[in-house]
Amino acid sequence: MKNVLVSGGWFRKEDLDRLSEVANVIHLHDLEDKQNLDSALPTIDILLTASWPSSLTEQKIAKMENLRMVQCLFAGVDSLPVSIIPSHVLLCSNAGAYSQEVAEHAWALTLAASKCIPLFLTLPRDKPFFMDRMFGIAARMVSLEGRTAGVIGYGGIGSSFASMAKAFGMKVVAFSRRSDPQDKGVEILQGKEGLNRLLRISDVMLLSLPLTKNTRGIIGSAELSMMKEQAILVNVARGDIVERTAMLRHLKTHPNFWYATDVGWHEKGKEMADPDNEFRGLDNYLVTPHVAGVSSQPTGKPSYQAVQNVIRFIQGGTPANVINKSEY
Amino acid sequence: MKNVLVSGGWFRKEDLDRLSEVANVIHLHDLEDKQNLDSALPTIDILLTASWPSSLTEQKIAKMENLRMVQCLFAGVDSLPVSIIPSHVLLCSNAGAYSQEVAEHAWALTLAASKCIPLFLTLPRDKPFFMDRMFGIAARMVSLEGRTAGVIGYGGIGSSFASMAKAFGMKVVAFSRRSDPQDKGVEILQGKEGLNRLLRISDVMLLSLPLTKNTRGIIGSAELSMMKEQAILVNVARGDIVERTAMLRHLKTHPNFWYATDVGWHEKGKEMADPDNEFRGLDNYLVTPHVAGVSSQPTGKPSYQAVQNVIRFIQGGTPANVINKSEY
Repeated sequence: MKNVLVSGGWFRKEDLDRLSEVANVIHLHDLEDKQNLDSALPTIDILLTASWPSSLTEQKIAKMENLRMVQCLFAGVDSLPVSIIPSHVLLCSNAGAYSQEVAEHAWALTLAASKCIPLFLTLPRDKPFFMDRMFGIAARMVSLEGRTAGVIGYGGIGSSFASMAKAFGMKVVAFSRRSDPQDKGVEILQGKEGLNRLLRISDVMLLSLPLTKNTRGIIGSAELSMMKEQAILVNVARGDIVERTAMLRHLKTHPNFWYATDVGWHEKGKEMADPDNEFRGLDNYLVTPHVAGVSSQPTGKPSYQAVQNVIRFIQGGTPANVINKSEY
Repeated sequence: MKNVLVSGGWFRKEDLDRLSEVANVIHLHDLEDKQNLDSALPTIDILLTASWPSSLTEQKIAKMENLRMVQCLFAGVDSLPVSIIPSHVLLCSNAGAYSQEVAEHAWALTLAASKCIPLFLTLPRDKPFFMDRMFGIAARMVSLEGRTAGVIGYGGIGSSFASMAKAFGMKVVAFSRRSDPQDKGVEILQGKEGLNRLLRISDVMLLSLPLTKNTRGIIGSAELSMMKEQAILVNVARGDIVERTAMLRHLKTHPNFWYATDVGWHEKGKEMADPDNEFRGLDNYLVTPHVAGVSSQPTGKPSYQAVQNVIRFIQGGTPANVINKSEY
């Protein structure tokens, strides 16, 4: 039987029970409590984790000579120390487990921006609804029917978002590395020219691609300048896909443009929406604190899918979501 | 040729040009400017208006002996002085002209509540996204897939909302007077028992029915007490369909329940969200100032459809949206 080291309390008992039918399930906190981590590490075949365990330093990883797979609970692996994971070890993300909930959140951000919800929340409630007061805001309200949604990164989240966009009567275009989309009625655009076309024609744009060497900062001043004056850019991926200084300048000079994001920029290892307090007072920047996937946890899907991928690997199948580590 | 009296600046020139091919188009402000309103009134066959013109008092209406039709630009006619319109005069609403945009707005409210957008907006932006700070809020976040949407009033807005609900993976039930719904996959409930069942099983409820004698206050304490603890009630109809005192009590005692509304209560002829400043501090009450239909105007649909209904009547057709005045 393979030895699976489990870190953190995110995995459901019922999933770990299933796992223990095909593997020895070892909890990292047990090893730490008994101070026998060092002797156990060489026997570990698979690591199942959410965020990276602080006790697993580069030195400790070097001792895990049997390690063949690292399975992450999260959809993105950009926060893991990918460079210290040996090249022969499979690293798997949990992409897809959060797609429905993150796409729902992306729609919450899209509609909050298009209907100016944050601006209306600041109005006094004990005064009559005066047309003259609200019409300044209402002029920024956008009807979505017949407009174009551009999905940048057409995986699980992107395709869920696209289905919902069609129900709102929108046309959908997608920027994707794959050229074989499952969904009908979605125009796939590829390459730099494809991305530029998407940026020019879209009224709503969704960032739903991983943060890698290739995608860091791909939305900079050149890309922002191609977008429509009244476009809405929604980010449910990672903040650092967007250049912060370029975005700040764009929001200041384009008052009808919206940046609606669930993710902030990383500064000294911490994620935040406005590290240097420069976006204050901008009423076209809407942010939630990286919570899009939180409501996935109660559904059990993230734990189930991550454990299922480990079981598939143990039983000789091909695991899903294998990461190309050279991109990180 | 029939004489159509047009009030207000809401109707597009291109629609009035079409109308003038089949009728004499007379502008109320022209009559008022020339002070010949009294002599013109007996010749008017049709009144086309948005809000009720203040110059058309009950005495003036009595002089409009040729009047056969009043066509309103708005989807609801509850703000018109229905009792002074003679019984033989057709009164037509403009239901349907705003369906897409109001349904979009209803989804903006639904998703803002289910994803707790108003609560996240109050967090500081120059601090890291700490799990412990956001998790209190995030526990209230709701995933919509597999849940039930209950549509109360299944007309144009209700059926648009239902289509979008299905794209989010929701089951849909609807309370409707009609028993012949066009949409597949929508369970129609009728009568008091049907309404009660909808209130018990729904996670999201939409109020999209007209305010009439029969619907004023139909959501009171008995109805609220049937709803799920974590339900979301969305109102894009009229505030007075909901009993204000009952709602205030319910929000105070059910912190995970949301009331998300685009409409306020009428007090002395003015609409407002919190007339007596009693809802202050409640973080489960979300309100926008009756703007759901505003983004319909730029599409031209409201003006087009209202004028089209008048043309249909002039040409001997059966007008749409004829109101049963005895309900007002």
